Amino acid sequence: MAETKDADAIFKNFKEHSIAEFFKKNRQMLGYAGKVRSLTTIIHEYVTNSLDACEEAGILPDISVEIKEVGEEKYQITVSDNGPGIPKAMAGKALATILAGTKFNRHMQQRGQQGIGAASCTLYALITTNKPIHIKSGTGKDAYECDIGVDVKSNKPIVTNMSTLEKGSIVGVSINGEFGEIKYENSDHGVYEYLKRTALSNPHISIKLKEPTGNEVSFPRHTQVLPKRPKQIKPHPLGLTTNDLVDFAQYSTSNKLSSFLIDTFSRVTYNKIDELKTIAPNINFDSDPKKISWADAEELIRSFKKIKWISPEMDALSIIGEEQLKVAVKNILDPEFSQIIERKPKVFRGGVPFVVEAGIAFGGGAGKQGKEVVGGNILRFANKVPLLFDSTNCAITEAVRNVQWKRYGINNFDEEPISVIVNVSSVYVPYSGVGKQAVSQEEEIIEEIKLAVQDAARGLQKYVSHIRNRNMQESKYKTIMRYINQLSGDLSELTGAKKEKIESSLNAIIKNKYKSVFDDDTKSEEVQEDANTPEGLED
Amino acid sequence: MAETKDADAIFKNFKEHSIAEFFKKNRQMLGYAGKVRSLTTIIHEYVTNSLDACEEAGILPDISVEIKEVGEEKYQITVSDNGPGIPKAMAGKALATILAGTKFNRHMQQRGQQGIGAASCTLYALITTNKPIHIKSGTGKDAYECDIGVDVKSNKPIVTNMSTLEKGSIVGVSINGEFGEIKYENSDHGVYEYLKRTALSNPHISIKLKEPTGNEVSFPRHTQVLPKRPKQIKPHPLGLTTNDLVDFAQYSTSNKLSSFLIDTFSRVTYNKIDELKTIAPNINFDSDPKKISWADAEELIRSFKKIKWISPEMDALSIIGEEQLKVAVKNILDPEFSQIIERKPKVFRGGVPFVVEAGIAFGGGAGKQGKEVVGGNILRFANKVPLLFDSTNCAITEAVRNVQWKRYGINNFDEEPISVIVNVSSVYVPYSGVGKQAVSQEEEIIEEIKLAVQDAARGLQKYVSHIRNRNMQESKYKTIMRYINQLSGDLSELTGAKKEKIESSLNAIIKNKYKSVFDDDTKSEEVQEDANTPEGLED
Repeated sequence: MAETKDADAIFKNFKEHSIAEFFKKNRQMLGYAGKVRSLTTIIHEYVTNSLDACEEAGILPDISVEIKEVGEEKYQITVSDNGPGIPKAMAGKALATILAGTKFNRHMQQRGQQGIGAASCTLYALITTNKPIHIKSGTGKDAYECDIGVDVKSNKPIVTNMSTLEKGSIVGVSINGEFGEIKYENSDHGVYEYLKRTALSNPHISIKLKEPTGNEVSFPRHTQVLPKRPKQIKPHPLGLTTNDLVDFAQYSTSNKLSSFLIDTFSRVTYNKIDELKTIAPNINFDSDPKKISWADAEELIRSFKKIKWISPEMDALSIIGEEQLKVAVKNILDPEFSQIIERKPKVFRGGVPFVVEAGIAFGGGAGKQGKEVVGGNILRFANKVPLLFDSTNCAITEAVRNVQWKRYGINNFDEEPISVIVNVSSVYVPYSGVGKQAVSQEEEIIEEIKLAVQDAARGLQKYVSHIRNRNMQESKYKTIMRYINQLSGDLSELTGAKKEKIESSLNAIIKNKYKSVFDDDTKSEEVQEDANTPEGLED
Repeated sequence: MAETKDADAIFKNFKEHSIAEFFKKNRQMLGYAGKVRSLTTIIHEYVTNSLDACEEAGILPDISVEIKEVGEEKYQITVSDNGPGIPKAMAGKALATILAGTKFNRHMQQRGQQGIGAASCTLYALITTNKPIHIKSGTGKDAYECDIGVDVKSNKPIVTNMSTLEKGSIVGVSINGEFGEIKYENSDHGVYEYLKRTALSNPHISIKLKEPTGNEVSFPRHTQVLPKRPKQIKPHPLGLTTNDLVDFAQYSTSNKLSSFLIDTFSRVTYNKIDELKTIAPNINFDSDPKKISWADAEELIRSFKKIKWISPEMDALSIIGEEQLKVAVKNILDPEFSQIIERKPKVFRGGVPFVVEAGIAFGGGAGKQGKEVVGGNILRFANKVPLLFDSTNCAITEAVRNVQWKRYGINNFDEEPISVIVNVSSVYVPYSGVGKQAVSQEEEIIEEIKLAVQDAARGLQKYVSHIRNRNMQESKYKTIMRYINQLSGDLSELTGAKKEKIESSLNAIIKNKYKSVFDDDTKSEEVQEDANTPEGLED
């Protein structure tokens, strides 16, 4: 039996650890679990950063990804963009310090949020190949290249081999690194699928992929129109906790509580302050907001819930857009039937705005396309970023599985060529883990997704029964045609008429009766509408 | 449209954040999602720490939990133990600094691992009630009480109101705090269920719970025997990555690579070094381990995989134990049938030892006990800690769901009074998230759990069919008995014999034919064996 210890002996080993040490030990929490997934995670982190940067700089993104096998489960990865670049002085921290970034606490819809992604890649390169990553970047003001590593104990960057490049010789960021314990594979969880789905939810970007085999794949841009830039919005009073209110108050420059509330939060007006005064008569709205007590803040939060507010501002939300998603679905899945729904924005937890887009694609390239089996699949997106992992844990999966598919002509979701596409956009998407691969199962979000999917599924039943009917007609037609030759001969003998004449008459009668079999009307109205590509879209 | 920005403008907002800030914003990742779950998480963190401390100090744990409602969704929580206490100088960091603790990187089986739990509670108290937590502790050397808060920006403790208490006036730790946005509820995810399951997997502890209603519940100790203390073991060569090897080498006090390998890792002997020399002739085993190159380390890791090793040491693992679990299942679930299986230790990822214990309980108090419905449930444990959340994401759920239950007499798992108990113990349990509520779905772990559950289920089929048969006999017996009276009368008239005599004869015949109905043999052999309580166990 091992020795037992007293408190001093136990606490002799007490140590503090950096967040980098923590994630080094628990890399599966960041998405580095399994070799295929780890590779997809790396690509995901870099591509996400590129798209956010391009969006912020108003640039139509050109992304290129190159993956070269350099050893056993070891690959050279290069991801390049045409974005705004990273200032020289910032490169180290931006790419190596975990929990450092521009996006934290920004109350704005972005793909990245936490300043973990790119730094986690540098950490992963270090622990699997012991090599720093290499960056080339041009910001318009300067251009440089350098190596970036990380000191795990302190979570600080190690920048080496910095050299200045000719201005303009590079535009954007190109990151190159060698990573181990990863594997390129063409599966549902692989890089190809990830980039295909990224193209689906971002029709304004162009992506090129060079696979380890040397094979080049291109997902071309389908529209020159940049998505509407989301605005940074003020928080809505109904989305606040007491702690939020106190935190905001600490940084207030207002000298009165009333003007602090009006300046800081959305939908707060002088009229609303008057209403609040009658509900919370003990609160002094002329007091210094910095000195607000916890009890007063609690009282305010309670009072907020007692008055009527206009809904939160919605221009914080950036969506794919109905037309854009339609074109992307047509180009990438080429289904026989499709229907896209863009719902109105809603709120969850009282005040956090979010919006759901949903699409149904059926037939053609839709659904899971196995070697022999066909089945339904769910393409999940949050803020336009594809979610490939942890599907069972996700509000989207939960909602889609809860739809009564039989009502929409789908007897078994897992056996039909159907794709359900769902994108949840929000200033704050509540992810269930650090790896951001699943949307937390909040009741209001699940309900809204379900409504969106049901909306999109509405035309499906009609289409599916039409197809089934046509298939039945076709089968009857074929059965009858099998007897035409024999019957014509028999009739000819009986009547003395020419066999050929009888056969051609019978043919005409039957063809007329089963004419629906010969009409190519398998394309639904929705898909036919797609022919009218909106202005500004490539064909 | 919002303005677009260049690199400098974008990076103007570049900031670094503390891990406390990160988790303050993403508290759902720590288990603070939903009011009932948040309360359970708090209890879980404190109880887990108490059990680890008691185990390390060799003390039979007495835990008491008290929950008082003090406002709307606000509760006073007190958790006390009789453990070794926390040294005065350490109290602040131990209870308020995230990623600080005694357990990180310890290659030893423990419930806690990361130094996040108790500090996350302090953070949660702060952001929901703005109040510090209060601790009283006695270590044998000193006794004190104080308030502990946290500075979120720096992740540092704020210790106030420190006062010395009379030595011996308190033994162990008693933590008291006020928490908001939580709710006490008697559900599958609530505190009662959590503590009940903790008692199930730790028969050596005594837990008292005082509910907000004032109701007191007690889970008594079922054995005076402390579980075998797990040993801190040396890592096995097959469980290492290149990076691990290099990291260990940096701290080596050996001056030769060969002695570093022998001293640091399990199962490495001079003979093994000789074997390695023939496989990796380029490596100089007399060189300074601190100067090992990445390439040499990679070569070594590859070479490790080419030779035969004895399995990892298993005394690192602390399990519940077959006998102990049997007693606990009987006392807490009181089923009609039960079977407990303790499997031999196995390894995953090449070199990490783990062991699975599984139990099946059927009938009696087993299964989900709803108001009218009965159904199967899965009681998941990792290192003896109950896992109540994220069940869909868990290797245990996956394995139990994959069992072909029909083979074991269970037609529909969700409609039978069955409980499956699984405990996975390991030096390193690969949790899928920071909240440690699910075991990552590693193939080798799932497979081993499935085998264990199947083992335990083996006697079930026989038992269930026996029960079904008995029920059928009973129903036939009752049907026949309904006609006895009438039949006896009719026979009496026909034969002239006395009705009473005929009736009693018929009764005797039928009772003899259906005698199994009258035998109380519903208890299985396994359960009857339980009567022989092993020595040292209370009744």
